[in-house]
Amino acid sequence: MNSITSNVFGPAKSINVARVLLCLEEVGAEYELVHMDLFQAKEQKSPEHLARNPFGLVPALQDGDLVLFEARAIAKYVLRKYKTEQADLLREGDPEEAAMVDVWTEVEAHQYHQALRLIMLECFLNPTLRGLPTNQAVVDEAVEKTKKVLEIYEARLSEHRYLAGDFFSFADLNHFASTFYIVDATPYGSLLDSYPRVKAWWEDLMSRPSFKKISANMTTK
Amino acid sequence: MNSITSNVFGPAKSINVARVLLCLEEVGAEYELVHMDLFQAKEQKSPEHLARNPFGLVPALQDGDLVLFEARAIAKYVLRKYKTEQADLLREGDPEEAAMVDVWTEVEAHQYHQALRLIMLECFLNPTLRGLPTNQAVVDEAVEKTKKVLEIYEARLSEHRYLAGDFFSFADLNHFASTFYIVDATPYGSLLDSYPRVKAWWEDLMSRPSFKKISANMTTK
Repeated sequence: MNSITSNVFGPAKSINVARVLLCLEEVGAEYELVHMDLFQAKEQKSPEHLARNPFGLVPALQDGDLVLFEARAIAKYVLRKYKTEQADLLREGDPEEAAMVDVWTEVEAHQYHQALRLIMLECFLNPTLRGLPTNQAVVDEAVEKTKKVLEIYEARLSEHRYLAGDFFSFADLNHFASTFYIVDATPYGSLLDSYPRVKAWWEDLMSRPSFKKISANMTTK
Repeated sequence: MNSITSNVFGPAKSINVARVLLCLEEVGAEYELVHMDLFQAKEQKSPEHLARNPFGLVPALQDGDLVLFEARAIAKYVLRKYKTEQADLLREGDPEEAAMVDVWTEVEAHQYHQALRLIMLECFLNPTLRGLPTNQAVVDEAVEKTKKVLEIYEARLSEHRYLAGDFFSFADLNHFASTFYIVDATPYGSLLDSYPRVKAWWEDLMSRPSFKKISANMTTK
């Protein structure tokens, strides 16, 4: 284990920064969050940050000489590096468990997040950060898409306590920030109420110390 | 190693099916491709297939009793299961190499594919499969986006022979299908000519037996 404290670059409120911070908290690693102003100073486009990530996005991780970008890649590096028997969120020692972690991690990226992100964008980011009005037709379509996704999640979570099986994993963790913002910052948090297994799973996740700690820095209220 | 032949469900021409097939070829695994008609019969929405993937998408993998969906998850399962010293495309034994494989695999998903897919959609899928005209304004914007991505790839491939380092990996492999279709099925294959390192990397990839075999079933000419 490396004794150098890792630096994570990016604002605490970013969905992808939160993804990395949750992993660091889950494994109990030491780290420092280096805040970046994305909207006024656009620090993500500075030469210093472009040297970390040529695409000019957050987060980036500096761990000794190693510099990484892309949140899911950083997160997996952290989870592998600090893996313990208690905190084994990738389950790479078991090919079938690892595969189910990967399946539901991909589902988050390509189905769940794609459905929820337009609700977040229209009801939260556009009005508060960009002064743009909410396009309700876009929201309505996204809500219908979200319901279809939540139906499938309800069925999955009726078979297993967590998405990849009966163990908490990286797949569950990845759902944190978009679900948090839908509940905390939009009028659509009540969507979960119609899916009791999903609702119970979300409450279970939010009771974890890591989720409590990271969400405390993200609240919009 | 399992002696049951795996079944991959989906059409050979699908980008995400090709991602899985390339992995099976790279590791030399036995498999059978079970063709599915996505456009006329919409077999991906049949009860049989929804039991494999509740989201009704291809590919799916059946390996004995294990059923998986989401192409990147299936691909990693295959690469782990059949890993050899010669065919170790995830490099999970080395945390830093594994991290670089993950970084450039994520870059493919979130940057490279996002830039190229609109060129493919407008110049190939919409006209040939859907009878829709090409929206040239969308294409022009996607071409500009692609050039910016290719500039970053040119810099990366000037430092290392492959994306994750000086070894061929899952990160490179993931670039196959969208690059193949841009070159084979659109007027924009010549974009690569302005980026000599990218062009040499692509020619290197296409010289691999696996790439030759899988691309032979995908050509649009």
